[in-house]
Amino acid sequence: MKPYIPESKLPRVVIIGAGFGGIQLAKSLIKTKQFQVVLLDKHNYHTFQPLLYQVATGGLEPDSIAYSIRQIFHKKKNFIFRMADVERIDTNENEVITNIGEITYEHLVVATGTQTNFFGFDGISSQMMSLKTVPEALNMRSFILQNFENALLTDNNDKKSALMNIVIVGGGPTGVELAGALGEMKKYVLPNDYPELDLEQMQIYLFERQPRVLSNMSEVASKKTEKYLKELGVQIFTSTSVNDFDGKNKVVYGDNNEVIKADTFVWTAGVKGNLVGGLDEKVILRGNRIQTDSHNQILGYDNIYAIGDIAAMIEKDTPRGHPQVAPVAIQQAELLAKNLMAKGKKQPLKAFKYTDKGSMATVGRNRAVVDLPNFKFQGVFAWFVWLAVHLISLVGFRNKIAVIMDWIYNYFTYDRAMRLIIRPYHRKSKDD
Amino acid sequence: MKPYIPESKLPRVVIIGAGFGGIQLAKSLIKTKQFQVVLLDKHNYHTFQPLLYQVATGGLEPDSIAYSIRQIFHKKKNFIFRMADVERIDTNENEVITNIGEITYEHLVVATGTQTNFFGFDGISSQMMSLKTVPEALNMRSFILQNFENALLTDNNDKKSALMNIVIVGGGPTGVELAGALGEMKKYVLPNDYPELDLEQMQIYLFERQPRVLSNMSEVASKKTEKYLKELGVQIFTSTSVNDFDGKNKVVYGDNNEVIKADTFVWTAGVKGNLVGGLDEKVILRGNRIQTDSHNQILGYDNIYAIGDIAAMIEKDTPRGHPQVAPVAIQQAELLAKNLMAKGKKQPLKAFKYTDKGSMATVGRNRAVVDLPNFKFQGVFAWFVWLAVHLISLVGFRNKIAVIMDWIYNYFTYDRAMRLIIRPYHRKSKDD
Repeated sequence: MKPYIPESKLPRVVIIGAGFGGIQLAKSLIKTKQFQVVLLDKHNYHTFQPLLYQVATGGLEPDSIAYSIRQIFHKKKNFIFRMADVERIDTNENEVITNIGEITYEHLVVATGTQTNFFGFDGISSQMMSLKTVPEALNMRSFILQNFENALLTDNNDKKSALMNIVIVGGGPTGVELAGALGEMKKYVLPNDYPELDLEQMQIYLFERQPRVLSNMSEVASKKTEKYLKELGVQIFTSTSVNDFDGKNKVVYGDNNEVIKADTFVWTAGVKGNLVGGLDEKVILRGNRIQTDSHNQILGYDNIYAIGDIAAMIEKDTPRGHPQVAPVAIQQAELLAKNLMAKGKKQPLKAFKYTDKGSMATVGRNRAVVDLPNFKFQGVFAWFVWLAVHLISLVGFRNKIAVIMDWIYNYFTYDRAMRLIIRPYHRKSKDD
Repeated sequence: MKPYIPESKLPRVVIIGAGFGGIQLAKSLIKTKQFQVVLLDKHNYHTFQPLLYQVATGGLEPDSIAYSIRQIFHKKKNFIFRMADVERIDTNENEVITNIGEITYEHLVVATGTQTNFFGFDGISSQMMSLKTVPEALNMRSFILQNFENALLTDNNDKKSALMNIVIVGGGPTGVELAGALGEMKKYVLPNDYPELDLEQMQIYLFERQPRVLSNMSEVASKKTEKYLKELGVQIFTSTSVNDFDGKNKVVYGDNNEVIKADTFVWTAGVKGNLVGGLDEKVILRGNRIQTDSHNQILGYDNIYAIGDIAAMIEKDTPRGHPQVAPVAIQQAELLAKNLMAKGKKQPLKAFKYTDKGSMATVGRNRAVVDLPNFKFQGVFAWFVWLAVHLISLVGFRNKIAVIMDWIYNYFTYDRAMRLIIRPYHRKSKDD
């Protein structure tokens, strides 16, 4: 079955995935007026993943950090969006096989990003929380609040603690920012909501296998971050592995197999590519990334490309590929649009070169760390820079305003307004 | 099992339901400092039902019209909230049996409100949409948008139409306001999102068995409303019954059993009380309402009361009880608080007398109808009055601001920003 897609005389570029890379590529290609652009995604919205943790902790609503894909491309010509799950690529027939039928392409771009990699914990992953999608963020919000409601119902202190405790595995940006936001909830929000509970009984644990959190940033940033987290009451275990989780509340960690009890177990310790079937196994590298040349062309395929987190451009300077962050995806998308134009005109292609503008993370109000290529700073000013960069990057005027308003509200009231259990979350029904 | 609830020397009032009546009663009782107030609800939030249709049509986010119950009662003494499903009342033991255990009471107030009454369509109700809760509103939003995505995939015009068409049964305020909001979506929003679809193929049908819509309002209000709806392209069938719905898209209506095709079938044609078991059957009246005396005391029970939509105070002036609207619930709650005080002091009780401040409904931008006791008006001014009254009634500063911002955005852009399919809705999995 072929789903109805308007005919065009222009060569068709099919893009799988409407993340930062896919959206940018579609925008750049539409501008050239030389292609019919067909964008596929399983959702009808683009997710601004860097702020998911604020949805999970009640600071923002989901509608503020997600944006209608159709809206982004209103009134654009030669653009088609279809909501579709891609099953595999038929590289011989130049077709993408999806749940809505087969879609042919002249050029195909895989921009499917990553999903959580649970490593050895795959078997029990449905009992854990993760934070890659809007439904996952809403589930986490509901789950934590439901546990607090349940903690009220017991007078057994061990049970109470276990219901309130939260373990986060992975001290990267997601783990750190989530730990900070939860620390603020514990300090400012939950005591007002639950005067009957003793918040001293609640612990937030952050586990990181490396010797420091934010190991991709500078040492000064890591140190400051650990200080900030401790100020918010987060217990940090660096150079420490989590060895086991029983799917309920028993967490085993460290060389001596020590045990803590925590109902909420959040996994942020790694990602793997969202692979699409049909490609030669040789091009699939560690972490399900797809090997490309310096033009993002997948090795061995003349008209198939990969950009962003799923792509691994293995070069001298990048033996393990580029960092899996939004700026790489956006820059690769911009260049690929140019290279597709050049290809059409049989002009030489340009090799990708990443311009690293720095990285940052926030722990809480007035607490952030910023590493620029030549300058590193932390504290209140870093926090304002973090706010400004994230606001500017948000898609859409309405979302920017909504987020500003909520941030102002959160700042002055010390409150997090979005703590409603609108769809209760029960383990084992994780799929949305 | 008894869930942990702090002891108190004050007599305990248990309130079931945190709607307009339950919240008001709790507030009034707390002020007296003479009672321990235990409020039960199956959700941890209060829903502002009058604006649910705007959540369903993408104009507002759910977090703006729902409000944390704990937040409403921050720092209040002698107040306890528990999230609980009430199963029945044990009137002999003065206990409420819930999913979290038994809770004893000195006084009990049933303020459980209503749910959708599907009448003869009960068997197929899981295939219909309704609009009494936030999850239902979100399901409707997702379902309509999913149907539009699917309409893109077929070139069969009948299928396309059926996917886009919407049937609303019931021309009361909910049906009218929903029809108007959908008419605006059809006119302003959907053409931009779906340039590939011919919106002429989409029909919105509104069915009402009475000879006019809004039959509880004045004739001039009904007439103006029907005119407004027609301007927005809504097809109105008054004095017409819907006879059958096949659970997919076949709708049979009228004396001649005519057929239309519509995947989205919305039922807003009636409500019935959310009954709690354990009461004498004699006090349960038509529509599952509970008969009370003029003090909201349930007939035959000395210390059990019912207020709001579930209560039927059958008197000379109100042979079928009061209208099931928020002002009745709020006024009954205020009086019941006073009467409970009076009862404690063995003072005489005051009989309830409803002060009707009028009613109103909106159809769309600049289009509303208002009936005051001595004055009726329609149009732009009525619309502003409608906006102001609803804003003032919303609970919480943050929600007021968020709603104002979204309304301003919607007004100037003609857009509805919240059209994300965040949790896809599939029939037969309606329960959240």
